[in-house]
Order: sequence, then C-alpha cells, then structure tokens
Amino acid sequence: MLRTIDLNSDLGEGYGPWSMGDDGAMLDVVTSANVACGGHASDPETMFQTLSLARDNGVVVGAHPSYADREGFGRRVIPCSTGEIERLVATQIGALMGAAALAGTRVRYVKAHGALANVAADDRSVADAIARATAAVSPDLAILAISGTELEAAGRHRNLAVYSEIFADRGYTPTGRLVPRSKPGAMIHDSEAAAARLVDFLTTGLMPTLEGKPIALEAHSICVHGDSPGAVAMARHIRQSLEAKGIALEPFLGRTS
Amino acid sequence: MLRTIDLNSDLGEGYGPWSMGDDGAMLDVVTSANVACGGHASDPETMFQTLSLARDNGVVVGAHPSYADREGFGRRVIPCSTGEIERLVATQIGALMGAAALAGTRVRYVKAHGALANVAADDRSVADAIARATAAVSPDLAILAISGTELEAAGRHRNLAVYSEIFADRGYTPTGRLVPRSKPGAMIHDSEAAAARLVDFLTTGLMPTLEGKPIALEAHSICVHGDSPGAVAMARHIRQSLEAKGIALEPFLGRTS
Amino acid sequence: MLRTIDLNSDLGEGYGPWSMGDDGAMLDVVTSANVACGGHASDPETMFQTLSLARDNGVVVGAHPSYADREGFGRRVIPCSTGEIERLVATQIGALMGAAALAGTRVRYVKAHGALANVAADDRSVADAIARATAAVSPDLAILAISGTELEAAGRHRNLAVYSEIFADRGYTPTGRLVPRSKPGAMIHDSEAAAARLVDFLTTGLMPTLEGKPIALEAHSICVHGDSPGAVAMARHIRQSLEAKGIALEPFLGRTS
Amino acid sequence: MLRTIDLNSDLGEGYGPWSMGDDGAMLDVVTSANVACGGHASDPETMFQTLSLARDNGVVVGAHPSYADREGFGRRVIPCSTGEIERLVATQIGALMGAAALAGTRVRYVKAHGALANVAADDRSVADAIARATAAVSPDLAILAISGTELEAAGRHRNLAVYSEIFADRGYTPTGRLVPRSKPGAMIHDSEAAAARLVDFLTTGLMPTLEGKPIALEAHSICVHGDSPGAVAMARHIRQSLEAKGIALEPFLGRTS
Repeated sequence: MLRTIDLNSDLGEGYGPWSMGDDGAMLDVVTSANVACGGHASDPETMFQTLSLARDNGVVVGAHPSYADREGFGRRVIPCSTGEIERLVATQIGALMGAAALAGTRVRYVKAHGALANVAADDRSVADAIARATAAVSPDLAILAISGTELEAAGRHRNLAVYSEIFADRGYTPTGRLVPRSKPGAMIHDSEAAAARLVDFLTTGLMPTLEGKPIALEAHSICVHGDSPGAVAMARHIRQSLEAKGIALEPFLGRTS
Repeated sequence: MLRTIDLNSDLGEGYGPWSMGDDGAMLDVVTSANVACGGHASDPETMFQTLSLARDNGVVVGAHPSYADREGFGRRVIPCSTGEIERLVATQIGALMGAAALAGTRVRYVKAHGALANVAADDRSVADAIARATAAVSPDLAILAISGTELEAAGRHRNLAVYSEIFADRGYTPTGRLVPRSKPGAMIHDSEAAAARLVDFLTTGLMPTLEGKPIALEAHSICVHGDSPGAVAMARHIRQSLEAKGIALEPFLGRTS
Repeated sequence: MLRTIDLNSDLGEGYGPWSMGDDGAMLDVVTSANVACGGHASDPETMFQTLSLARDNGVVVGAHPSYADREGFGRRVIPCSTGEIERLVATQIGALMGAAALAGTRVRYVKAHGALANVAADDRSVADAIARATAAVSPDLAILAISGTELEAAGRHRNLAVYSEIFADRGYTPTGRLVPRSKPGAMIHDSEAAAARLVDFLTTGLMPTLEGKPIALEAHSICVHGDSPGAVAMARHIRQSLEAKGIALEPFLGRTS
Repeated sequence: MLRTIDLNSDLGEGYGPWSMGDDGAMLDVVTSANVACGGHASDPETMFQTLSLARDNGVVVGAHPSYADREGFGRRVIPCSTGEIERLVATQIGALMGAAALAGTRVRYVKAHGALANVAADDRSVADAIARATAAVSPDLAILAISGTELEAAGRHRNLAVYSEIFADRGYTPTGRLVPRSKPGAMIHDSEAAAARLVDFLTTGLMPTLEGKPIALEAHSICVHGDSPGAVAMARHIRQSLEAKGIALEPFLGRTS
C-alpha cells in the first residue's frame, strides 16, 4: 500500500479580467500545481500571479500546455500536425518558464491539458511530440501523464522522468481511460464517494470502472479539479480522508531539486 | 573608424497564414535577427520557421518583445504598469526560447520592438522593467538598445552586456531619437542616401539630424527594416556599400558563444 | 420629482469558458441590459445566451461597444483614430444585432463601455465617432450616455434619441465626471448609502460630489454594476428602496417598440 | 450555353498590419466580392477598407463567414455544435453589415469559407445552421453555395435566394466535390488550362473530374482565388477568355437592388 501520494490540480486558468476557481484555496490543499501557460487559458499576468502564489505556498509547479483554444478551454481537438504540437508545447512551456524566472520559482514538469492530454493518451505520435518538445526545452523536466497511457511510454523513450496520475472525480472506462464529460458517470460529485474510492485504490492499486471489472493503475499523483462548484471542498475532504488513513501528501518531485 | 559592424533586422513578423517581408532574403544579408515572439506578431509556427531559417543561415538571433498588440503591430503605446511590462517581456522571451530549443538554436539577446522600444528609450522605469525581465530569464542575454537611450543604462545597471544600434532608414531628431513615423523625414527611402549616411557615420561617429547639428552616437549594429517595399534591395545595397569601404559585417555577439 | 426611472447594468461580460457576475440574477432586477459585443468581453455564444436570457426576462437590450481589449477589459485607452473608433463601434453593434436576430430580440440602444465612454465624455471627436457609427448602423438606435457629457451632444447632433445615466455606486467629481477607479471615493460599497443617495438625487436632481457642492444632472437611467462581489444584493436593495419611495422601475425606451 | 456569368473572389483577407493578395487589382476583375468578416481573417479596419474599395469599384459584396480560426485561416474543422455555428455565422454577418453601413454599401449574400463551406457541402445539419443564421439576420440575403451541395438545399428550404458557384482553379472529384488541397490535382496553376476548362463548362454544363467522367453542375458564378501568386493574372486571363467567347461578366445579384 502507498504511504505517500501527490495531489495535483489545474490552476492559473483565468484570463485577463476573468478568474476560474479559487486558486488561493486550492494551493493550500494540493502539493503540485499544473499552471496554464497561454493555450487554453492564462496570460502573462495570470501566469505570474499563479506562480507567485504557488511559490508562497511551497507548491511544486508544472506547465499545463494545451491546444491554442481559449474559447474552447482546450477541450476541443484542434486539427494540428505533430510538428505544430511540438511548437505549441515548447513555446507554452517556455512562456511559463519566463514567468517563473520572474516569480522566483521553477517549472519542474509538464502535464498536457484537456483534449491534448486525451489525444496523447492513445496516439503515440502526439505523445511523442509532447515528449520531444519537453525534452528539447529541458531534459530536467518530468512528465506527469494520465496513468496507463502512450504519453508515459513516449516520455520514457525520451529518457524523461515520468510520473502517473489518476483522477479523483472522474469515472474510468474498462480500458483505463476517462469517461468523456458528455457521458453519464463522467464526473463524481460526491466527496465521500470520491475519497472512499481513492483510499480503496491506494490500498489495492485497483480502480473501479464504469462497466466491468476494476483495472490496475500506477499512480504517483491524484488530480483534483479546481474549476467546478464545490471543488475546494472536495479537494479538502480528499486530503483529510487520505491523511486520516495515514497517507502523507507529498509532491511527486519532492519539495527541493 | 569602425572596421566591423553588425546588420540587424526585425524578422519573423508574420502571423498564422500571413507573412511580412521576405525573411529568407533578409537572412542572407543581415548578421543578427530580432525575432518576433508573439507580442506584435508571430505564433509558435512562425517563431520556429524563422529560427530554423536563421540557424541555417548562421545568423545570430535575439528576442523582439513588444506590447501585446498584434492589430496595432506593437506600434501603439498600450497602457501597462512596469510590472505588466516585466511579465510580457519575460514570457515572450521564454516562448521564443522554447521554439529555439526545438529549432536547435539559441536566443542570445533582447531588443524591444516598436512603441515599447520608444517608451523605454526615455522612460527609465520601463527600461528597468525590460532589463529586469531579461536578467531574470537569463543573465547571459544581452540587450540591443537604440543608441543613447535609457535602456542602455538600465541594461548596464543589471550587469547585462549592452549593445547599441542605429537605424539605416530612419531620420534622427537633434536629441538622437527617431523621427516619429507620422512626421516628414521619418523614413529614408533612397538606398544610396541611406548607405552614404551610414558610411559617413561609421567614419565620423556623427549622425545627421533632421534639424540642427549632427549628434554623436555609439553603434555596434545597424538596423535595416525588412517589411517595406524595396527593403531587401536597400539592405543589400547598404551591405555592399559598407563592404566596398572595407567595413566587415559581423554579428555584434560573435558567431559562437 | 421623477416617478419612473430605468435601472441598467453591464451584462454578458463573460468570454469563452469564463463568466463575470451573475447575469441571471441581475436580469431579474434591471430594466435595461448593456450587452458586451466582443470588444472588452463576450463572443458569439455569450452574446446569444445573454440576449436570450434578457428576452426571457423582458429586459430591453443595448449594445455595449468598447476598445478591442479583452485583456484590459476595455478599461485602458487604446490609441485609435476617430475613424478606427467608428469601425470598431459599428462592427461590434452589428455583431450583437446578428446574435439578437437569432435570439429573437432587438438591439435598441448603444452605450459605450469603460475607457471609451470616459474618453467620449470629454472628447467631442470621439463622441462624434460613436454617434456617427451608431446612426450609420441604424437611425433607430438610441444613445445611452453618461449624464452631462459630450456624447449626449454628439448623439443629439446626429438626431439620435439620447438618454442619460447616473451611477449608483460611483463617486462624482465637482464637474460631474466619475472619480477614477484608482482614486479613493471612486466606489460606493454600502448599499444603504448608495440607495439613499439615489433617492435624494431623484427628489432633488442634485448629485453629491466628492469635493464641493452637488451638481445638477439629468437622468433617465441608473447604472448598477454587476461584476463586483455583492453587486446583485446592492442592485436589489436599490430597486427595493426606490420602489418603497413610489418610484417605478421602467425601461427608458419602453417595453415595446 | 450561358451568355452571362459572375466572377467572385474571397477578398478582405488581411488582418491588422498583414495583407493577403492584391484586393485592389482583384476588384477590377471580379463582379462579386466575398468579404472576410472576422472568422478566418479581417478586423473592423480591414472590413471597412475592403467594403469601401468594393463600393468604389461597383462590386457586389457578400459576407464570408468562417470557423473562428485566424491561425488556421478557416481551413481547419473546429469542433462546434450546429448552435455554435449559427451564432458565429450570425455575428460575423452582423459585424460586416455594421462596417458596410459605414462604408455606404450593403451586404447582399453569404458564402461560407473554407472548412465551414466544405463541411456544409455534405452535412445538412451544418448547412441548415448557416441557412438559419442567414435568414434570421435578413431574409433578403442570398446564399452563394458550392454547386451541387447540401447548402443549396438548406438555403432553398429557408426560402432564401440560392446561387451556385464553381471553381476556376480547383480540381473536382467524380461526386462534384473539390479535391482536397493536400491531394495532387487540387489546384490548376495554368491560366490557359483553367480558362479553357471554364469555356468548355459554360458551353456544355459539364465539369471534368479528376478521375472518371464529367459531372453536370449548375453555376451562376465562378470563384477565382486572390491569395496565391499569379492569382490576379489568372483572374484577368479568365475574364478576358470568357469575354472573347461572348460571355458577359455580370454580378449574379445584379448591380442594383
């Protein structure tokens, strides 16, 4: 049974005058923050403010690149060649690194967002593009991938450190993929149910699926969402439930490096 | 008299399907390229293609950050705090560095674009913001500043290597500033006149001004524009005229580093 | 003493996945809605949803054009010629009219947003540009202007119906202008104080100013803000306070046309 | 045999400081102009300048709506619901109408651009969305559709006037669709060949296809492209070749209305 686990969340997803979720509260709960870098959300100010807040909270930060699609919040598959994906991932990571240098923190990993992450889960060529871009920007960057996906393989192939995540509030298909948001069972809205599922998973290594038998998944981190109503309350409840079972919350990359 | 000088140009100023000027031809003439990084122009594809072309031509590249204003091409002063300027400069440099990592080249200096460069020429707080952002991203980056401006002082104050440029085709005011584009005498359209002025300047160190007596300016580089009709022809003529006088064209940062 | 008054609010100020304020609640309180049309906020979906909601609530709608500046939420003065202002106003009104046609409602007036409204308050050439663009799109459109400004004069000069607004929660200068948001006294945060000031104003026609004596202002409408915390509560309190004094809330343009 | 035909071209496809093709020259050749309206290209200034130039040349103008995708120039299928397509089409037409009101001209038809046109050719629900949006904005607007497509049927179903176009420089598949740009035979680069094909088509009503036998197509207009090298020369050659055969060039909607 796992005795430590990371809690990550997608943060910095505002844009200009608009905010999304309560980053300040989430940064008090999570141990790693996936920070939007201008693809599906954010801008230089939002990046800097989010990174500064993460630094103040001692939270490890990663880049959260996406298709260039603010209006669709990165949840639509925008037709792109793998070369184009390399370029958008590299420039988004780079932009966040620029903001991090100003904020006195450091980007330590890369986690693909939304539709890009879903495509990279199954399409090795897209996964390779993300891994190539990451390694080119810095071989010291780790990959945080959805557990059991092609992106894990692509990252390892590039000799990047690879970590795996599971989702606190998303239903799983029998093949270990997320149930699409448009389908019933996609989201778990009940904090108790979500926390209980995670405690079971961390004990057994088996994740229940929507139909069929549980699937074995590797996990270094649990993704909790920050942009839905009740998100902070659920994240807090999950953290408390895990700690009550003796599971320590620690960043998958360690607090220093 | 100077025996070597750099020739720089603003390149990579397309956006999506749109191009601006003939970058391929200009990269055959200049020794340093100021590459747009998403502020007044460019996008991940354009950055990557421009950097790849510069690499193939052995041209040194710098970042060319700007107010975030594609519709105004960075020629309008967008109200921004100095903090906001720090963030836009740092993220734009970072984005270009990400693309450069993919293209197998390196961003070696920073030159502010358009309205941002003009404001930073006289406003020390804006100049300081650019220098702080540059130094935060990397202390190894140099500053290429308009000769005789506050940005030179701000860069030196941050212990950055600072180089100065003069303009091949722009008229000067008696205080050493560029005549605004909206005023007569702003642009020199005649290649012969531009080349002759430069040869004189490199011999005497004195730049003619629109009204009044010539002004002494320091210069490590000459900026030639790439986006006007006849731009390539003027740049070629200037290069040939300088070489005919025994002045060698060399990047101000040297070909290796 | 006025026996009826309009209550207007800036609505539809979301963008893509981001929302701003609680439009549904505000549409239950106000009688006229100034709907963002792609300048400082909004997009086709947001326009359509806001207009549909306004239609369902029987709220009169106007266009709320702005400088093209989502990142600055239209609160920055973007350098533009008066010709450029004409074009951005006309195309933003037109876009909203397109969405209104789909939503089965009609755009009936134009109110400039933020920095554009402030500039048009004192600069007659900018006020004329807004009036010209409005009249060109349709001579049936009314102008809703800040009371006592050049935009009122410009609208009348173009033979447009002109209505005047005062602000429920903004402090006034002795010349009848809004105290800038960066200054103390700019915002009234107390609902009781705001409502009492309005009841006094509607009785006397005199508006208190931050320094000096009250100023006489004409008013067909009161602007209540929808985007700050407590905005809905303040708007409701103002509506109830006015109704308690026998002042009826009616759209300045009437419910039909 | 047809004795008159319209010549249309996609114009106004610049953006901010960037231009695309030589609109001035094309407006001297074509009889109808499909004007970009902010989806794949353009902005308020570009719309206004293009419409003003069309007005001066007596060229009939239509709106050229597109997926909201400037970086992809509207050539990528962006995932959108049919409701979203209605909204983007209606607001883009409306924006252009606003600019036309200022320019003293009138938008008289709608032609879908790029990927949106290709999807609407075969997907009746998307074709219906375009027709619904067009009819909602104004029942007086005509539809200009690719000959033989679902958009023709959808427009007629909404009681809109429908006109059909063929392409001067694009290869056809045996089902009457355009050969995708990525395939050989997609583009005809030779002016003589393009003109000869059109003269034959206008005589016989049969269009050659890339593989297989010619297909019968209805045509009220011929689309000539304006954005490729040699575009103006090809358009001029086609016009001259048609006139030499006694075919008059007339706008499909007539010069007045």
